[in-house]
Amino acid sequence: MTVRAVYALTGDVAEAPARAEALAVEQSHEFPPDLAPAKAASSRASVLAVEEAGPDLALATIEFPDELAGDELTQLLVMVFGNCALLPGVRLVDLEVPEALAAAMGAGPALGAAGVRRVLGVPERPILATALKPVGLPTEDLAALGRAFAEGGIDLIKDDQGLGNQRWSSYAERVPRVAEAIAEGNAASGRAARYLPCFDAPPEHVEERLRIAVESGAGGLLVVPGVGGLPLLRWLARNTPDDFVLLAHPALLGGLTVAPTAGIDPDVLYGLLLRLAGADAAVFPSYGGRFSYTPEECRSIADGCARPFAGLPASLPAPGGGMRLDRVPELIEFYGRDVVLLIGGELHRDGDPRGTAERFRALVEP
Amino acid sequence: MTVRAVYALTGDVAEAPARAEALAVEQSHEFPPDLAPAKAASSRASVLAVEEAGPDLALATIEFPDELAGDELTQLLVMVFGNCALLPGVRLVDLEVPEALAAAMGAGPALGAAGVRRVLGVPERPILATALKPVGLPTEDLAALGRAFAEGGIDLIKDDQGLGNQRWSSYAERVPRVAEAIAEGNAASGRAARYLPCFDAPPEHVEERLRIAVESGAGGLLVVPGVGGLPLLRWLARNTPDDFVLLAHPALLGGLTVAPTAGIDPDVLYGLLLRLAGADAAVFPSYGGRFSYTPEECRSIADGCARPFAGLPASLPAPGGGMRLDRVPELIEFYGRDVVLLIGGELHRDGDPRGTAERFRALVEP
Repeated sequence: MTVRAVYALTGDVAEAPARAEALAVEQSHEFPPDLAPAKAASSRASVLAVEEAGPDLALATIEFPDELAGDELTQLLVMVFGNCALLPGVRLVDLEVPEALAAAMGAGPALGAAGVRRVLGVPERPILATALKPVGLPTEDLAALGRAFAEGGIDLIKDDQGLGNQRWSSYAERVPRVAEAIAEGNAASGRAARYLPCFDAPPEHVEERLRIAVESGAGGLLVVPGVGGLPLLRWLARNTPDDFVLLAHPALLGGLTVAPTAGIDPDVLYGLLLRLAGADAAVFPSYGGRFSYTPEECRSIADGCARPFAGLPASLPAPGGGMRLDRVPELIEFYGRDVVLLIGGELHRDGDPRGTAERFRALVEP
Repeated sequence: MTVRAVYALTGDVAEAPARAEALAVEQSHEFPPDLAPAKAASSRASVLAVEEAGPDLALATIEFPDELAGDELTQLLVMVFGNCALLPGVRLVDLEVPEALAAAMGAGPALGAAGVRRVLGVPERPILATALKPVGLPTEDLAALGRAFAEGGIDLIKDDQGLGNQRWSSYAERVPRVAEAIAEGNAASGRAARYLPCFDAPPEHVEERLRIAVESGAGGLLVVPGVGGLPLLRWLARNTPDDFVLLAHPALLGGLTVAPTAGIDPDVLYGLLLRLAGADAAVFPSYGGRFSYTPEECRSIADGCARPFAGLPASLPAPGGGMRLDRVPELIEFYGRDVVLLIGGELHRDGDPRGTAERFRALVEP
């Protein structure tokens, strides 16, 4: 079995074959080929193909012995995008991971798109999400917002990624109280909103904060793998209750997609790598908001979440970053129904979060 | 107290003041300013200055209430470089963190440059490092290399970042055996080389693998914070033996420095953020090797490791990535004596690793 990665090499196409060979060495042996010991030959990556893809653009497919990943996500990441992250003109644009390797790594979402729909009781329509914010509000205000959003029909009510353990609302105080308020909202409305606290715990607080979330009746977590690490996300996918929804936030990590000729293609990052690491849904900034992904990139992210990969269930794209109610029909037309529509600050526009949530919900009801 | 971050804004300078205001909101409230509740005012970041720095370039200084970081590195990272990582034309170019906040976060290197010199017994000369590689060699071969390098006078003998827990040499087998071989080399030569195993443990194996390293008599760890997360590096700095040297490898994380007008300046990443996270020394690819940092960038990294920051001890720059013995005098001239010179594959050039290590050592002896 092998892992295959495709890299876009920008620059003189005549140099691409030699660059591809150097890349295969860089990502496996990182050793002068003329000095490599014969007995290490089985651990060297090799170049499967180099294809011209445009002026100054070639696609190099590198094949890695799957044993290089050692059944651990951490090693797989170093292998496919470790040193080459530092090479301008090299961009990871596709990835194939054998199903057996993903299984051995304990990788992949516990729920995936279908599982999220099941635990939410939302079989077909787009799923609605919002954020409790801004940081600086006391817990009671965040709890009141949570209750209003639950009553109004939001499915996933997450903490803002900036809400951690600050003095205005500590994690230990906020999570039980907001979970309770959302449960009250559900009881009043007959709905099933889930609270996803922001989980950015330092290693020494991971178990304690997870216990607080679980005991509070939270329904999942907002995870920031660019900060806490992809391995922590994978660990959470294997060590949280069966119905926990794990939503990945792109803070910091998304920076790897910004340079067009280096880094990682957005569909590979949000659709493949975050899915491999266990995200049920991946937040990303949609076109038409405050950020810069093009419609084509956003389309590719949604495709990346859904396309067959490593035998894993599909995940859900969660476009956000400045969305508004008046764009909901267009967003559904664009992304289809298998989407988590994330609208944050704009749900506060009319000073009536419950009413705004109801209007949001009405826009997606059949 | 406040945290200050400086961002380079590329684009029309006339738009810079408005972009700086939007950035302050993005990195704190992430909420429409016209809707922000008055009681959350104390948690909003503000723009301290916007200065024209060239055609299409402005420097924006943003001031954050230090309580936004909640005494946790994870939150500080989201605050200074979370969402804005996704903004092309925004680059983090400087950072000031109050000493009291760094202390409250439990941040910073346990040893730093002076501490590394102390535990190595190397008061003045450049420190020498190499890597055990390539992946694919059996443990006995890696152990023999370790012994040869220790006898030859290398100070820090690290695993390659590609060595994790693969079938050719498992972590549990390799670490005790290599540590033993290096101790034998030290006993034979009267030297004090330290072994730094590659520590890329998934969360469920962190404590077990750390125990193996400590019980084996390893002298530190090679950490890959781009994969395992900066919070794990910080945790290791607080939870490893007092004399453990933590060397940070740039795999994946270094990708944030590659785009010139987005991401993070190399001196901020390697010199400030990795130091804050606890790195005693930061590996980066030097100019003149297989990668692309310019001499100016490399100079800035070395300065970033040494300049006053958050009341922390200086760390050490560890230039590598294709260095050779014949460049050592030039590298010392360039970086000065406070440096870890990292030469990997090229130490194998003559088929006599001990002899090559001795020549490397002779080049830095006074």
